[in-house]
This record gives sequence, C-alpha cells and structure tokens, in this order.
Amino acid sequence: MGLDTDPGKLPAGVSVLEFNKAIIDATREFCVAYKPNIAFYECMGVKGWDILAETVEYIGKDHFTIADAKRGDIGNTSNYYAKTFFETYPFDSVTVAPYMGKDSIESFLRYEGKWAIILALTSNPGADDFEMLPSGEGKVFEHVLRKSSTWGNDGNTMYVVGATRAEMLADVRKIVPNHFLLVPGVGAQGGSMEEVFRYGATKDVGLLINASRSILYASSGKDFASAAAQEAKKMQQEMAKLIAELRH
Amino acid sequence: MGLDTDPGKLPAGVSVLEFNKAIIDATREFCVAYKPNIAFYECMGVKGWDILAETVEYIGKDHFTIADAKRGDIGNTSNYYAKTFFETYPFDSVTVAPYMGKDSIESFLRYEGKWAIILALTSNPGADDFEMLPSGEGKVFEHVLRKSSTWGNDGNTMYVVGATRAEMLADVRKIVPNHFLLVPGVGAQGGSMEEVFRYGATKDVGLLINASRSILYASSGKDFASAAAQEAKKMQQEMAKLIAELRH
Repeated sequence: MGLDTDPGKLPAGVSVLEFNKAIIDATREFCVAYKPNIAFYECMGVKGWDILAETVEYIGKDHFTIADAKRGDIGNTSNYYAKTFFETYPFDSVTVAPYMGKDSIESFLRYEGKWAIILALTSNPGADDFEMLPSGEGKVFEHVLRKSSTWGNDGNTMYVVGATRAEMLADVRKIVPNHFLLVPGVGAQGGSMEEVFRYGATKDVGLLINASRSILYASSGKDFASAAAQEAKKMQQEMAKLIAELRH
Repeated sequence: MGLDTDPGKLPAGVSVLEFNKAIIDATREFCVAYKPNIAFYECMGVKGWDILAETVEYIGKDHFTIADAKRGDIGNTSNYYAKTFFETYPFDSVTVAPYMGKDSIESFLRYEGKWAIILALTSNPGADDFEMLPSGEGKVFEHVLRKSSTWGNDGNTMYVVGATRAEMLADVRKIVPNHFLLVPGVGAQGGSMEEVFRYGATKDVGLLINASRSILYASSGKDFASAAAQEAKKMQQEMAKLIAELRH
C-alpha cells in the first residue's frame, strides 16, 4: 500500500496524518506492507518529516515498511542516507537508485535484517531512455540486476520492476529467479496483476505488488476510507486467487 | 564549497550550524557557490532540516546554492522533489539522478531561473559499474549527456562530471560543449584541478569545481575556520591562475 499522500487531494478538513491513519486502519487486513513515498513528506519541510515519523509508528510492527526514497550517492554519503531510513526513521527497507554503482548501494546492505530495494526497470515512460539501452548481450537494467545481485543476496536485496512492463518480468526472472520484486504500476498506472503473476511469480510468490493512487483516492469524499478498504480488498482478493492458482 | 558537515568530525563544543556559519564566513570571498550535501542533514531528522534552512538563509543571495540531493522518481513524484528544493527550501539548483529518464528530470526544468544538475560521470569507484557500460557508439553516461541535453538547455541544465576522471572531460565536451559542469572529486578524492581545466574548461570557464572534506576538515582544532579559509584561498588562487592562462 503506497502512501503517496497529496495534501491537495484530501477531503476537506482532513489532515495528512489523519488521512494516513484512516487509510492504514482501512487497509491493514488487506496488505502486507506500507510504502510512504518520501517526496510527498519531504516537500512539506519539517512538518512532513514529523508526519512521516508518526505514520511509521502508527503502521507498527506487523507490516513491512518501505521508504520509497530512491536515494544513492558516493559511499561516504550513502552511509548517511542509510542512517536516515534505518536509524533516524525505523523503516525495514528503502528504495535506492543504482546509477552510481556498488559503493552507492553497499551502505544499505550493511544493516542486518534490513533491505535495499534497487531500481531495475521502472514503470514510467522514461524507463526507455537509459534503463532499456542495449549494452552487450543485455539491456542496462539487466546489467543492474546481474551485477548488483552479487553485492548482496536474496535476503537483503529486492528489485523494483514496473507492472507496466509485465512481459519483461520473464527476462528479470532469468537473472534473479529468487529475489523479491517490488512491483509498482498496478492501479493508476494501468499494469495488470494477472500478467505480473504470470511472468514474475516464484513458487513462493516473491512479489510485493504496490498500488497507491487507485486506493488512496478511490473516493474524494468523506467515505474515502471505506472506499479505500473496498479497493484494497478487491486487489487482495485478486491476489489471493492468483496465489491459489500458483499453488495448484 | 561543499557543506558535507559531519557531526562526528566537528571540534568539541561546536554545533553543526555554528560550524557551517563559520565555514561560510571563512570561505565567502574564495568561492562562488555552496553545496550542502542533503544526506548529512536528512539523517539528523527535523533538526537537520532546520539547520539546512538556516544554513541556506545564512549563505544569502550573493552565492549560487546547490542542493546535492541526487533525487529522481516518476514525473508525478519528481514534482514534489522539485518543490522541496526550489520552494520549501530556496535553492538555485539541485542534483538529480538520470536512471529513470526524461519524466524524472523534467519536473526540475519547469522552474524559471532554476537549474537541474544531472549526474553524468561521477567521481566514485562505482561509476565503472553502469555509467561506463558500453552502449552502441558510446558509454551509458554519454547517452545520458546526449539525450538529456535535449530536454533542457545550457541555461537550466548542468552535469556532474567527477575530477577523478578528468581525461574523460574531453569526451564530455564533445557532447555538451557549452553546459556548466559541476566537478566534485578535487581535494579529498584526489582529482587534479589543472587537469579538469585542461580537458573541461570552455572559453568562459564553464566549471564549478567542488571541494568539501579537504576544506571543512583542514584542521580538527579550534582554528578550523582559519584553516578552511587558507585551504579555500589556495584553491581559489590555483583556479585564478588557470583562468588567467585560459584568457591568454
């Protein structure tokens, strides 16, 4: 469940924190993880970081937490980004950008029990610009998968692969057959959950499928929380059906 | 002047904000720009963001300001990162990561009078992993330069090119002859200013050469500010000499 909470889209009189708490209560039983999108909090200044901290605390320990921050810098600096999301704020995982290579990612892999979720093939149109560039026998994102999967292991590294390119999941699975994949792009961005399963599921599922806007803003009225619950439940049921088929 | 202020490296009894103010006062006459490294502030939580805001205000309007944040996400989200560093905090420019392509950068180019500084070839060892991958007739970072230079222009886009790979600046200049380059890696990382000029200067210079640790921590004692001034002056004089030679 992506928490891309946009102050401009909330029902009248509802604060960001109230909205997040209501969404969390409404969706808790239908999801396994929460993914606050850090940009939406950061742009509010210190108020936003306070709301983020309270949101993470409210989520509690029964759900996996993902800081969708897409950070990445030279090793010396990445240490501080890792500290931000693993110590200052107690997330279980953080999304990271691979462009700067190994030392930009390693900092995140040094934390026992935490996860780095590396951008591989993203769900946006711009993914064609560099991620899909051919290089030798693969594309750039395939080099990212191949190389970075040797820096950690499938117990501390996951990959972002967008649902809008579901058929590419088959190529991803040739390189990282066992890693968890974080799959955005189902919902508002139009990806198909059934296709994500067909091309990307392992025998243990191995998928964290994210939706944000389609659930958060299912209704713009006072019934936003119950509308969100309904939308989340619909996705959960679709996923349960696909998991059942997988186990047949 | 990079403001990568590490609380663990400050002289006893000096706070991060006091340190920044003393460094700014000591280096003002020797530099044209300040570049706070956002990771160092972010990891302190809200206190860090307050220090960042006070630091930017203290810098004032006579110097160019760079938020070294290396952000980048899908367009919808990048809008909020741009808002953070151009509105919530009034920076003149922000460093951005190109991995996710055009829509991850465009948000930053929509602000009149602001600059996006795109990572091209960075100064760290990990630059070899993906930035230097061969792709068709160039390397990945050359595709980044070629493609992204069409999204904006040399009045709103700059590029990060590390001084540790100074000879590559000649290749960079074949693709972006007129864009400003932000060049980290002189100082603690060992790059040579003279080589940066030889391979990277335009007839109007076109270089923002950054040093951080070599100036910030020139002395670990109470004389840290005067030691920083001395180190900054040394770089400024070396640069003045190189600029004079350029104009001959």
